Amino acid sequence: MYSLTVRRHAFVAHSLKGDSFGPARNLHGVTLIVGAEFRAPALDANNTVMDVVRASRILKDVLAEYHYKNLDENPGLAGVPTTMEFLARRIHDGVAARAAGRFRGGLKITVRESPEAWASYEGEVAHRVKAGTKRA
Amino acid sequence: MYSLTVRRHAFVAHSLKGDSFGPARNLHGVTLIVGAEFRAPALDANNTVMDVVRASRILKDVLAEYHYKNLDENPGLAGVPTTMEFLARRIHDGVAARAAGRFRGGLKITVRESPEAWASYEGEVAHRVKAGTKRA
Amino acid sequence: MYSLTVRRHAFVAHSLKGDSFGPARNLHGVTLIVGAEFRAPALDANNTVMDVVRASRILKDVLAEYHYKNLDENPGLAGVPTTMEFLARRIHDGVAARAAGRFRGGLKITVRESPEAWASYEGEVAHRVKAGTKRA
Amino acid sequence: MYSLTVRRHAFVAHSLKGDSFGPARNLHGVTLIVGAEFRAPALDANNTVMDVVRASRILKDVLAEYHYKNLDENPGLAGVPTTMEFLARRIHDGVAARAAGRFRGGLKITVRESPEAWASYEGEVAHRVKAGTKRA
Amino acid sequence: MYSLTVRRHAFVAHSLKGDSFGPARNLHGVTLIVGAEFRAPALDANNTVMDVVRASRILKDVLAEYHYKNLDENPGLAGVPTTMEFLARRIHDGVAARAAGRFRGGLKITVRESPEAWASYEGEVAHRVKAGTKRA
Amino acid sequence: MYSLTVRRHAFVAHSLKGDSFGPARNLHGVTLIVGAEFRAPALDANNTVMDVVRASRILKDVLAEYHYKNLDENPGLAGVPTTMEFLARRIHDGVAARAAGRFRGGLKITVRESPEAWASYEGEVAHRVKAGTKRA
Repeated sequence: MYSLTVRRHAFVAHSLKGDSFGPARNLHGVTLIVGAEFRAPALDANNTVMDVVRASRILKDVLAEYHYKNLDENPGLAGVPTTMEFLARRIHDGVAARAAGRFRGGLKITVRESPEAWASYEGEVAHRVKAGTKRA
Repeated sequence: MYSLTVRRHAFVAHSLKGDSFGPARNLHGVTLIVGAEFRAPALDANNTVMDVVRASRILKDVLAEYHYKNLDENPGLAGVPTTMEFLARRIHDGVAARAAGRFRGGLKITVRESPEAWASYEGEVAHRVKAGTKRA
Repeated sequence: MYSLTVRRHAFVAHSLKGDSFGPARNLHGVTLIVGAEFRAPALDANNTVMDVVRASRILKDVLAEYHYKNLDENPGLAGVPTTMEFLARRIHDGVAARAAGRFRGGLKITVRESPEAWASYEGEVAHRVKAGTKRA
Repeated sequence: MYSLTVRRHAFVAHSLKGDSFGPARNLHGVTLIVGAEFRAPALDANNTVMDVVRASRILKDVLAEYHYKNLDENPGLAGVPTTMEFLARRIHDGVAARAAGRFRGGLKITVRESPEAWASYEGEVAHRVKAGTKRA
Repeated sequence: MYSLTVRRHAFVAHSLKGDSFGPARNLHGVTLIVGAEFRAPALDANNTVMDVVRASRILKDVLAEYHYKNLDENPGLAGVPTTMEFLARRIHDGVAARAAGRFRGGLKITVRESPEAWASYEGEVAHRVKAGTKRA
Repeated sequence: MYSLTVRRHAFVAHSLKGDSFGPARNLHGVTLIVGAEFRAPALDANNTVMDVVRASRILKDVLAEYHYKNLDENPGLAGVPTTMEFLARRIHDGVAARAAGRFRGGLKITVRESPEAWASYEGEVAHRVKAGTKRA
């Protein structure tokens, strides 16, 4: 099994609502250092799992929803505890949607909020039928 | 699959008895940088694999047996080569025992002794029947 | 010249008001990884620049003003661009005030917001006359 | 499952031929930071997956083919895009061949070219019948 | 004294001619992880030593001369041992020239070729009289 | 001003005697990650502050007194609190003595015991008159 990983970061504010969160209930912020690992059982003709520049661009595009943002103001996240685990999953689904046109395989997103704590979500990217290529 | 990882360190002295260990047969010491990765297929109601503060506290409690200690003086480790691999397993079992009340899933302990070498042990945490909750 | 450095982090939200700041004008957040370096030309009787546990505790106490906070809600910071450089200076002054009872020498605070950017402020800690020890 | 990982680096020049590679088509160079992770379900009598000094030596021996070299001048690599993924596989096979005499289990090679990008290959090491030990 | 540091990397090939260089005489390559530290005794009206985006852009522009290049083919470097120390100085001078229009103060360039070795050059940036602003 | 830094580590056991040291009074151990920074105002004919291989070798030779050792058994350290600051000074003096034959300039030793704490000592290396070269 092969993998390729790219890394970027995002500066986000958020608060975690719920009795169990302690000081994280306050509005605060974190630097999310995000790794996107693409896995495939074989390489393409260029000996790559995926083009590294394209992979990094996809991750950048997905993180744009979070970078320099306050997640509490994101309507799609209203009432949702935006934990590292949740964000890993959400970023995973965003990267998977964008990568699906050219990549099929495993995808693991790791989200690090400090040197002492990080989370991940790992799933599959299925080939999506691209627009204009639907068969009758 | 989701994961949450917390990291702490411990300052330990030990020696590795046995002909194959070379200079490590001397009493020496290492900073063990220890990661505890908890894995689960789904998140709880707080969107967490486990509360990060609680996870870190469990790891701290388990490392207390090693932190600022000479492992050669630990009766439970007499005659045992306390390699990184062995310590990863032992810390795993300690964390698993403490986490079992509220967590069920995979647990991977990584033990790093230098920037150039580390080891891990990965196993499962099964739900333990808690004291006072046994059925007749 | 000797030095001792301790490191901690804080999770802060803020926004940077002013035309020159681009996307940082949005409310967002960062993990500040903060190093406090104490410098002295000689060691004390314990062969330390300062007790490492005490140094770390002082840094923790100072960071409590920022950790899990939204700096935009801090009345003392109203209208102030809370850049890394500014925060390094402010943390410096807080650490200096707390350390002044027992430490005299150089103090450098480094504030890292991402793997790609950090800032510092370096100044002096003068001995403070402690309460109850003023001479007539 | 246990693992032991050792890490070394190599300084290599190369160019990536092919329309899709952009500036990487130029002759350039990278520091490859290479991790070799050995995995086994059980420990040996010394409580190790493998002797850490021996593991590091094997990795050093394999990297000697790349360290301080221009891969474009390696006849065995003529016309091959020497991507991180490809190098991870090739280093994997080299380490597997050398380790096969004494180790059986999983082997994962990770190759990091920058703080923002890395690749890996993971496979199995089967016991090899060593020269001179074949039975009739 | 304040500082602001930004970090980027460049992928370069080169060889070091001269009897004293051992295997580095071969054409090989390195990932240069380059930090540019700007130092000033006071902050500007934005509470910055320099705009962090602009600082990073300047470093990117200067590194473009080296990134994805073979230094042996650079006519300006013919016969010059392109050691880390030399490159730190040369990058320093390039950054200083570009920053001089708006920044005056100290500038330290650090060039890291591996986790085990790095070099730096530290000098001053003087205000340059900009084109079109010369006084009669 | 130029600098060159090399990094190595040592595995040491020790205890810190004295009422102020808390749990560090127990025999325990640390991985010391040691950087040796050599500073000079100009480069030599090879464009180096010092040969990087030679610098690393000197540091290795000096660390041999500590690596895989229990400092409590070192007669030269009897009754001495072997803090990071003290070790930085002692390693400094060892490196300075070995480097003095060919290097003159600043030398800073940094000793890191964990990701959260490190210390340094900085001094000068003066040219030593080498054996056999004394003038009458």
